[in-house]
Amino acid sequence: MSNRIRLGMVGGGNDAFIGAVHRIASRIDDHYELVAGALSSTPEKSQASGQALGLPADRIYGDFREMAIREARLKNGIEAVAIVTPNHVHYAAAREFLKRGIHVICDKPLTSTLADARKLVKAAEKSDALFVLTHNYTGYPMVRQARAMIAAGEIGKIRVVQVEYPQDWLSEEQDFKQAAWRTDPERSGAGGSTGDIGTHAHNLACFVTGLTVESLAADLQAFVPGRRLDDNAHVMLRFNGGARGMLWSSQVAPGNENALRLRVYGESGGMEWAQEDPNRLWFTPLGEPTRLITRNGPGAGDAAARMSRIPPGHPEGYLEGFANIYSEAAQAIIARRDGKTPDPDVTYPTIEDGLRGMEFVDACVRSSAKNAAWINI
Amino acid sequence: MSNRIRLGMVGGGNDAFIGAVHRIASRIDDHYELVAGALSSTPEKSQASGQALGLPADRIYGDFREMAIREARLKNGIEAVAIVTPNHVHYAAAREFLKRGIHVICDKPLTSTLADARKLVKAAEKSDALFVLTHNYTGYPMVRQARAMIAAGEIGKIRVVQVEYPQDWLSEEQDFKQAAWRTDPERSGAGGSTGDIGTHAHNLACFVTGLTVESLAADLQAFVPGRRLDDNAHVMLRFNGGARGMLWSSQVAPGNENALRLRVYGESGGMEWAQEDPNRLWFTPLGEPTRLITRNGPGAGDAAARMSRIPPGHPEGYLEGFANIYSEAAQAIIARRDGKTPDPDVTYPTIEDGLRGMEFVDACVRSSAKNAAWINI
Amino acid sequence: MSNRIRLGMVGGGNDAFIGAVHRIASRIDDHYELVAGALSSTPEKSQASGQALGLPADRIYGDFREMAIREARLKNGIEAVAIVTPNHVHYAAAREFLKRGIHVICDKPLTSTLADARKLVKAAEKSDALFVLTHNYTGYPMVRQARAMIAAGEIGKIRVVQVEYPQDWLSEEQDFKQAAWRTDPERSGAGGSTGDIGTHAHNLACFVTGLTVESLAADLQAFVPGRRLDDNAHVMLRFNGGARGMLWSSQVAPGNENALRLRVYGESGGMEWAQEDPNRLWFTPLGEPTRLITRNGPGAGDAAARMSRIPPGHPEGYLEGFANIYSEAAQAIIARRDGKTPDPDVTYPTIEDGLRGMEFVDACVRSSAKNAAWINI
Amino acid sequence: MSNRIRLGMVGGGNDAFIGAVHRIASRIDDHYELVAGALSSTPEKSQASGQALGLPADRIYGDFREMAIREARLKNGIEAVAIVTPNHVHYAAAREFLKRGIHVICDKPLTSTLADARKLVKAAEKSDALFVLTHNYTGYPMVRQARAMIAAGEIGKIRVVQVEYPQDWLSEEQDFKQAAWRTDPERSGAGGSTGDIGTHAHNLACFVTGLTVESLAADLQAFVPGRRLDDNAHVMLRFNGGARGMLWSSQVAPGNENALRLRVYGESGGMEWAQEDPNRLWFTPLGEPTRLITRNGPGAGDAAARMSRIPPGHPEGYLEGFANIYSEAAQAIIARRDGKTPDPDVTYPTIEDGLRGMEFVDACVRSSAKNAAWINI
Repeated sequence: MSNRIRLGMVGGGNDAFIGAVHRIASRIDDHYELVAGALSSTPEKSQASGQALGLPADRIYGDFREMAIREARLKNGIEAVAIVTPNHVHYAAAREFLKRGIHVICDKPLTSTLADARKLVKAAEKSDALFVLTHNYTGYPMVRQARAMIAAGEIGKIRVVQVEYPQDWLSEEQDFKQAAWRTDPERSGAGGSTGDIGTHAHNLACFVTGLTVESLAADLQAFVPGRRLDDNAHVMLRFNGGARGMLWSSQVAPGNENALRLRVYGESGGMEWAQEDPNRLWFTPLGEPTRLITRNGPGAGDAAARMSRIPPGHPEGYLEGFANIYSEAAQAIIARRDGKTPDPDVTYPTIEDGLRGMEFVDACVRSSAKNAAWINI
Repeated sequence: MSNRIRLGMVGGGNDAFIGAVHRIASRIDDHYELVAGALSSTPEKSQASGQALGLPADRIYGDFREMAIREARLKNGIEAVAIVTPNHVHYAAAREFLKRGIHVICDKPLTSTLADARKLVKAAEKSDALFVLTHNYTGYPMVRQARAMIAAGEIGKIRVVQVEYPQDWLSEEQDFKQAAWRTDPERSGAGGSTGDIGTHAHNLACFVTGLTVESLAADLQAFVPGRRLDDNAHVMLRFNGGARGMLWSSQVAPGNENALRLRVYGESGGMEWAQEDPNRLWFTPLGEPTRLITRNGPGAGDAAARMSRIPPGHPEGYLEGFANIYSEAAQAIIARRDGKTPDPDVTYPTIEDGLRGMEFVDACVRSSAKNAAWINI
Repeated sequence: MSNRIRLGMVGGGNDAFIGAVHRIASRIDDHYELVAGALSSTPEKSQASGQALGLPADRIYGDFREMAIREARLKNGIEAVAIVTPNHVHYAAAREFLKRGIHVICDKPLTSTLADARKLVKAAEKSDALFVLTHNYTGYPMVRQARAMIAAGEIGKIRVVQVEYPQDWLSEEQDFKQAAWRTDPERSGAGGSTGDIGTHAHNLACFVTGLTVESLAADLQAFVPGRRLDDNAHVMLRFNGGARGMLWSSQVAPGNENALRLRVYGESGGMEWAQEDPNRLWFTPLGEPTRLITRNGPGAGDAAARMSRIPPGHPEGYLEGFANIYSEAAQAIIARRDGKTPDPDVTYPTIEDGLRGMEFVDACVRSSAKNAAWINI
Repeated sequence: MSNRIRLGMVGGGNDAFIGAVHRIASRIDDHYELVAGALSSTPEKSQASGQALGLPADRIYGDFREMAIREARLKNGIEAVAIVTPNHVHYAAAREFLKRGIHVICDKPLTSTLADARKLVKAAEKSDALFVLTHNYTGYPMVRQARAMIAAGEIGKIRVVQVEYPQDWLSEEQDFKQAAWRTDPERSGAGGSTGDIGTHAHNLACFVTGLTVESLAADLQAFVPGRRLDDNAHVMLRFNGGARGMLWSSQVAPGNENALRLRVYGESGGMEWAQEDPNRLWFTPLGEPTRLITRNGPGAGDAAARMSRIPPGHPEGYLEGFANIYSEAAQAIIARRDGKTPDPDVTYPTIEDGLRGMEFVDACVRSSAKNAAWINI
């Protein structure tokens, strides 16, 4: 009998991008075995997708509620569930598993509305189960490295944070599945680029700096004719402790594929990291030459090494970063299973991070509606 | 008798950075000969600096007014003057030469106050002399290339403009000459980073896109204790025609030497240019691979070739870009001397650009004082 | 009962780098299940390593021969074996599995001696089993893209091939396990850097260009005092059809982590790819701007898409490239299992590629011994 | 009376690339005034070119001999001459000026034949005049920085030198002037790419490392049909002291504009510099992160600062590097004029460097004729 964590999945049927990512991420370090799924919005599609994945027919469900109920009763039912549906389903699905003590690994943003997010936080508080939010970019080794260096004071007190997340895939009207729900307020929520990628940028900035956004002023645009949600957002940020920042998210910036980038400047140094070149961290101690710190290379420390599998110069990428979130979660889940406390270094995005993301989106939308007035979070 | 334009200089004594730059820029294409100067704030220093430059003793002046008066009377007096003093001297100096019909090549920003800028515009309107403002970054060949491509519709209607100009040299308190006047409101004006480099960023964005900023919301900071002017500025921009933008200027961003960078996104393409890698322009037609266009290389056109001296792969830099402004000015001056109309392609930043820059600084300061309220320009 | 290919492993015990890589690679696309192993050189270590991997005790073997014999008799014995030992073990281990019809996935270089390589080719010819050599760099999507473009004539007839593979990890004497066997002729073979990484460079150049090396002239060095195998190699290449090339492999080049890089120039274009930035391919049609083709981005075609899991801008790395070899092998193995012909696009490095690699190493060593005389291959 | 050095020019008429470069280079730091010229191969063209440059009619000469004779007799005749003709004219022209005590600043390669080079060395030995060879790439500040760091032992004893100089402008047959003489053995000499750019690569490698090439093995190709001189060269190098190297020069590598690049690896560190990104030097102390040293930035020392005009982040380029050779020469010429010893830091390429370059070309051609046999230099 394998010791792997028994995993179920809600959403992630054929053609879903992020479902496949979660499955690969769960396999890379061999901590999980996918054993059940409610993969699509209809029982037929769910069966087809489940069979394609090699799931036993009796563990393929027509909807997530049925799955939660039955799996909770099975002797070897799932211990954790990955929720990878469009945003508006997150709340209802997560609630069903949380209340049955099944750990939840949920895609971001947390929910489609701030109200749902707040309810979900309460549901999680009442549950013994863990809640893990896949703000996957926090799983990159050099993001961990940056965070550890900043925490150690290597750039001094932070003054300026520049974070941006431009893409170009929605520069024109699109009607394929991935685009359709992300541009539909009913399924995506009030934020367009802000919800889909702005939340990543916001989360990354806070994760790396250890700061929180106290207030923001946002100017949102929907450039593509007929679009109902923002596809470009300009946001000014004020952090606790006095740091200031800018955040740009865009889905209409031709030439940018997935160009999440973070730059942080403190009193005694600066740092830069870009998601498309993730194995490198640029670090400048004020008055010294810029240094290139590579994953597992000289100058990289334990926080990055924990998240890393192979030597420097052998690039790890998006899937490995995503897998790191799964593997951190696995350590927490196994500790829970064994009645132990997990290694204190285990770190993953939580439901509180998710709530903060929803507050960020809500504040952006409200600020923009007031002509970019400052909104406290 | 050489045909070179007889040039005087106000400011630019020993140890001045920008004075030396102007002199080299004036020499590169051999259109000017420096023949007179009021180089420093005292007659003694001016003599010393003038002699070091090989100027004849009788063409070295103790102040700019004396120089303007005498040179205007000389048979072979100066035809043009370069004004390279701290900002607060620009207005008074420029006025003296303009009213005597001597062409003015003035460093940016135009003046230290918006009121002075408006008066100077009037003085220029009354004068037959030309007024050239050295927003030198518009002299880079690939900036011209970008501008020509955008004007030709190669990226479609513009949606988003991202411009930034971070530096790190004022991350700590500094008391050497270059830093001292730039952080002193009496000499620099109301803008710190906004005036010194933000005006370059603003000018570059407008020059390349052909757009103007209609309104802005600015959050200015002075991070270094005791600093009286902004050393970091976050600005949201709204352009005519509906484009939106962000502008970041900073003098406290460790690891950034002179990192002016412009990105422009339109309905059908995107473009990126960085001052520290100036011979390259990145161009992405929507849905096609990004292309690297190099100065004088394949894909670069006449607008860049006019500004370029040597083949692709032989980098031209800051001084050549600066020289291009001088050489454009020279064409205009020589045409004026010869009673001709200059080549219609001749393009250089004008006093109106300078006024717009001062309006930009003024709007930033006023917006920030109102907690980043939108200010129309 | 899962449909996964039942996989065994020879070598790859605790602390082995490449064994862990093979295991992750086999899991990423979920085609394999590791079920047996002879993981170390002693039964005790093998048991410890096998248990750590969750293998059942009765499928952990003290040596590869015992494993081959027993697994061949089991009803659900392994269908394929990954051989990830030091080089000198490859031949003897592979032979045992080949002769029992078990597919072999073997790390490179093929063997430690050319004689062994030739014997192994014969053993493979006699076997019904497949032989897959993990020249993993051929699994990168953009390597496939480059190969497809060259085959389609996009750079014309090839003139010049520049390939290099510098590293720095052996710049000083090292005595840890990974270094020890790689610098020991008994276990590694006659080539040092040439065998360990030069074979990758040679294979990559041939794979992408479709050319073969006809002759070479090599100047090998062992710079670190006491080192018995080359740690730096300079090689001039002559290909069939008239193309010429240079190959540089080095383990003593500080600042290079794993800097495999290939550049190919033809009559009508050029191409460049670097392993440390693997999602990008630079392509210059002669007389046009250089284009950046990204994995799954515009301009990338089917050959890359087959090898790719996620959208452009989401970097895939070394492990995914390695997994692509495993997944190509899986398609071939499953087709064999089902009595079918695999998809004609299925492509992986074969034992013939391995033989050519050994001939390359042999020729390098012989050429260098003759003061870099040309050696035909 | 200006103190500038009175300069003449041989060659460099209208349409000549390198003549214009020399003129700009001579002006940048204001040490020279061009006062005479024998600019073209016919008196008519020479007059036209001279007038276009503003030279007085009586200082424009129909040939270099006439110019040497008359200028030597003039009271204020030229003190130095720039020789910028095709290679085969260098020897005869230089000799005329040297024997009249006029300093020579000569473009590379030194001559078109090794025999001429040796005669010219003797002519220079007999002359009181200085001989400066414009291996201009040695004038780049970060090349000086690299040289100083290596001399100071910052990378330890050198093991490996990789130098390359690929271009693409001769990928097809060309008949314009610049191409015509460079591919004509009568005017260019026995080396094609080896003479035109290989000499630069050879010179740069030796200048930076302080080493000399003891022997080489070269494989030269002429890929373009009908071409009479090599357009691609692969060369293996052996330096004094045991370092080994590779040199690649090519004029048929599409996508490479002027991609001279040098990498040097020693026992305790590595360095990399690329001409197309000349303000940056990459330095890796073994076992530490790679550092980016910028011109005039932190970590850059006096050797670079001497060659630099403006702050870090303000790129200096090819013309400034070229000007540095002129300015070093000016210091030596002015010291000679004043009967003084120049600053010991003054460094420029000499006739001995030129002779070594011709020996390099000769060795390449002879080695290649013997199927890449090793040739001692």
